[in-house]
Amino acid sequence: MYTVDLNCDMGESFGSYKMGRDAEILDYITSANIACGFHAGDPSTMKKTVRMALSKEVGIGVHPGLQDLPGFGRRNMDISPEEAYDLVTYQIGALYGFVKSEGGKLQHVKPHGALFNMASKDAKLSEAIAEAIYKIDPELILFGLAGSELVKAGKKIGIRSAHEVFSDRTYQEDGTLTSRRLPNALIKEHETAVNQVIRMVKENKVTSLQGTDVSIQADTICIHGDGEKALEFAQYISTALNEAGIKIRKIGDSL
Amino acid sequence: MYTVDLNCDMGESFGSYKMGRDAEILDYITSANIACGFHAGDPSTMKKTVRMALSKEVGIGVHPGLQDLPGFGRRNMDISPEEAYDLVTYQIGALYGFVKSEGGKLQHVKPHGALFNMASKDAKLSEAIAEAIYKIDPELILFGLAGSELVKAGKKIGIRSAHEVFSDRTYQEDGTLTSRRLPNALIKEHETAVNQVIRMVKENKVTSLQGTDVSIQADTICIHGDGEKALEFAQYISTALNEAGIKIRKIGDSL
Amino acid sequence: MYTVDLNCDMGESFGSYKMGRDAEILDYITSANIACGFHAGDPSTMKKTVRMALSKEVGIGVHPGLQDLPGFGRRNMDISPEEAYDLVTYQIGALYGFVKSEGGKLQHVKPHGALFNMASKDAKLSEAIAEAIYKIDPELILFGLAGSELVKAGKKIGIRSAHEVFSDRTYQEDGTLTSRRLPNALIKEHETAVNQVIRMVKENKVTSLQGTDVSIQADTICIHGDGEKALEFAQYISTALNEAGIKIRKIGDSL
Amino acid sequence: MYTVDLNCDMGESFGSYKMGRDAEILDYITSANIACGFHAGDPSTMKKTVRMALSKEVGIGVHPGLQDLPGFGRRNMDISPEEAYDLVTYQIGALYGFVKSEGGKLQHVKPHGALFNMASKDAKLSEAIAEAIYKIDPELILFGLAGSELVKAGKKIGIRSAHEVFSDRTYQEDGTLTSRRLPNALIKEHETAVNQVIRMVKENKVTSLQGTDVSIQADTICIHGDGEKALEFAQYISTALNEAGIKIRKIGDSL
Repeated sequence: MYTVDLNCDMGESFGSYKMGRDAEILDYITSANIACGFHAGDPSTMKKTVRMALSKEVGIGVHPGLQDLPGFGRRNMDISPEEAYDLVTYQIGALYGFVKSEGGKLQHVKPHGALFNMASKDAKLSEAIAEAIYKIDPELILFGLAGSELVKAGKKIGIRSAHEVFSDRTYQEDGTLTSRRLPNALIKEHETAVNQVIRMVKENKVTSLQGTDVSIQADTICIHGDGEKALEFAQYISTALNEAGIKIRKIGDSL
Repeated sequence: MYTVDLNCDMGESFGSYKMGRDAEILDYITSANIACGFHAGDPSTMKKTVRMALSKEVGIGVHPGLQDLPGFGRRNMDISPEEAYDLVTYQIGALYGFVKSEGGKLQHVKPHGALFNMASKDAKLSEAIAEAIYKIDPELILFGLAGSELVKAGKKIGIRSAHEVFSDRTYQEDGTLTSRRLPNALIKEHETAVNQVIRMVKENKVTSLQGTDVSIQADTICIHGDGEKALEFAQYISTALNEAGIKIRKIGDSL
Repeated sequence: MYTVDLNCDMGESFGSYKMGRDAEILDYITSANIACGFHAGDPSTMKKTVRMALSKEVGIGVHPGLQDLPGFGRRNMDISPEEAYDLVTYQIGALYGFVKSEGGKLQHVKPHGALFNMASKDAKLSEAIAEAIYKIDPELILFGLAGSELVKAGKKIGIRSAHEVFSDRTYQEDGTLTSRRLPNALIKEHETAVNQVIRMVKENKVTSLQGTDVSIQADTICIHGDGEKALEFAQYISTALNEAGIKIRKIGDSL
Repeated sequence: MYTVDLNCDMGESFGSYKMGRDAEILDYITSANIACGFHAGDPSTMKKTVRMALSKEVGIGVHPGLQDLPGFGRRNMDISPEEAYDLVTYQIGALYGFVKSEGGKLQHVKPHGALFNMASKDAKLSEAIAEAIYKIDPELILFGLAGSELVKAGKKIGIRSAHEVFSDRTYQEDGTLTSRRLPNALIKEHETAVNQVIRMVKENKVTSLQGTDVSIQADTICIHGDGEKALEFAQYISTALNEAGIKIRKIGDSL
């Protein structure tokens, strides 16, 4: 039987500022990446999001970001591996507080935005992140871009890693994502997006922009929680995967 | 045998800003209240402070504060009990991250500055704080001003509370501290300060400014880590308590 | 001829977080209170909002708030008058930067949220705010709740003050707003709200909840920019005031 | 007659955190670069620092930094030129508030830390910074590393630029500073440091690490305000320059 996890960023509201349609999206996903107050989120939002995720039996993940609220954690910053270790440890702990309080359990860690992107290509940064996770709880699963330094670092230190794929992004023949600065980086059609994902899950392959087949492991699919069409796409992909005989199951139950 | 705990605020440096003589003070205290990034402190400082405290076998405490770095958490803010619950949960979790990472254990929670002062007189705020502690870990000890709403709230929900006394502050006949706005609020002479504390520990009494004896429970003594004389006083009180036959022992070993 | 100013809070978006329908609301108001990055807003939002306001010939006001982004500047904080002076000076300057850059001119200052509310009742805080304004530019107009300490402080130091009234709030017989904690604090019906305002402008009177007439000066009316009905109400009140023969004119052209 | 300006970073304290010996250093310098609350500093510190600088007739400069208080603005961040424009405008305005209030005048702008370093090599970032300055006040002087993109951008848009040199850093044969990661980057001996500066001012030359002479323009010398020896060095260089017949004069009086 084919299975895949569906993950989405959550809890990115901040104070009076609302973002995302978390309550509704939670009905379609199996893993929630919850912001921890550095790039987005705040203690009250974290508590509410943890409660919602638990009530819907969605796997709870830490979504640590750079300390850049004005830039939503999307601007690269020249941090040292030790700084990465420290901020990941802090944010895992902070979310752990709410999860423990509510009688739940952390499932995974997925770095956010620029931290995720920088780590994908930087072995030292990735190793610092993996070590932070390992030292707090070696049962936690590390989400990283399929084939990236992050998943390698997880494997190296001995924690489970989940290879993440994107439904709405095109791939290069070397297996990397097409840069957003290039045309054809995004897949806008729902059907094409979902077909790409189905092939990834069933055949472990993706057709690159160059036309070649690339090997890829698809443990979890990232979907977006913000934007007008987020909810619509969540419903669409959920239905389409089911129809293709792929069971959507939380990563902690598969790995 | 008489025993008492000696606690001090720690880890209040922030980024390039240094505060306190933590490494040296740690040799004289038994409980460290570690700032968690809201009123002071940052992830790197927290890690270093936790490591130092563990290496010196000092009890590790969470020192949650208001989210007011410019005001060092000393300005009262009109927060709701739910906001207090959320920010205490967050900060306990954040410090837990580092303690777990380092193979240690949290001992206690002492709210900081304005949060401590507001809670001392506000039952609802105190109950929210006590509940936050209880739900994460009912083994944690709550530090509160002797006789305050905080220690009452701890007792009510069923966690251990430590009554905290001050060596360098005078008391009123109703058992409260003399306001810093009044003359005679501070005891500047080391000997007087320590004698007050010795009597509190041995006789459970303190002489108020009005001249009457007031009952007081002295589980832990707060000393200050900042200022030029901090280290000197730490040494002085440590020696004086020993000479008076009072064993300085971490609160987790006594309560 | 009757005239009145219509003011609205603007520029309260922050980074990736959007708030308010500024572009549309600007078509109906004459004075914009622009957030300056303490309780809301950021440099990029300030620049855009200043440009929009200038292009629509709306009076530009500084909207200084407490340094409490998580609480949107709505939580009372125990700041000293000197701290108020400093943060108002800073925020006036920051907005001045953008206004100067764009070839415009500042018209007014309206403190935000908790700062506005605390100052309304606190003469010392109000005097510090008025002094900050006076020392930067004595031509700036201070917006304060009609009859409050803020407008008194402005008068005392010698700057122009605009008495602000609310269309959607009820008044007490002593001229203060009914607390939001009480029933009947809000006027939900558009027609009632606008009739109250028309009477304030034309007769300088408002009917209190107790049924008595209270004297009130109505130089500027505060409308809200957020919420689903904000735009609709802006259009409604604009039309209704015009039909009642009241010209909506920016305060700087009237005082 | 030879003249040179002596500049130093100032006002980098934050809330309860103290940094620098500003009051004493001000006696030896002619231009103060005052932090504006993004990488360091706060409204109260800005006011105090402006007052001190004015009382000692030191030229007042804006010292805008990245919005990275935990990293003291020293970590490169991937900001766009527009973001740079916005944050420089904001910070110039903020300091202008205090300077206007106190009856003074801004003299210059010197970007801080990572913003300074990134701009030195990035024409687009430098042009955005120069434009921000030009649009607020074309009389302001831009401080940039001698020969850098910053001074070029200033020249291009038509504002005065001051070429800044370092007394305690060695130079490469292409005129750039030796990277701090390399040995021999720093000049530790006071005498060598000052001799380098004297030659720069008198002969417009510096001997590179490679032994060749490099042309350099020395309008202003950067000295450090922090560290134990800061004050001592300020006194030393001040005396030595005077003895060498170089008058220390604020840049605004020379350019």
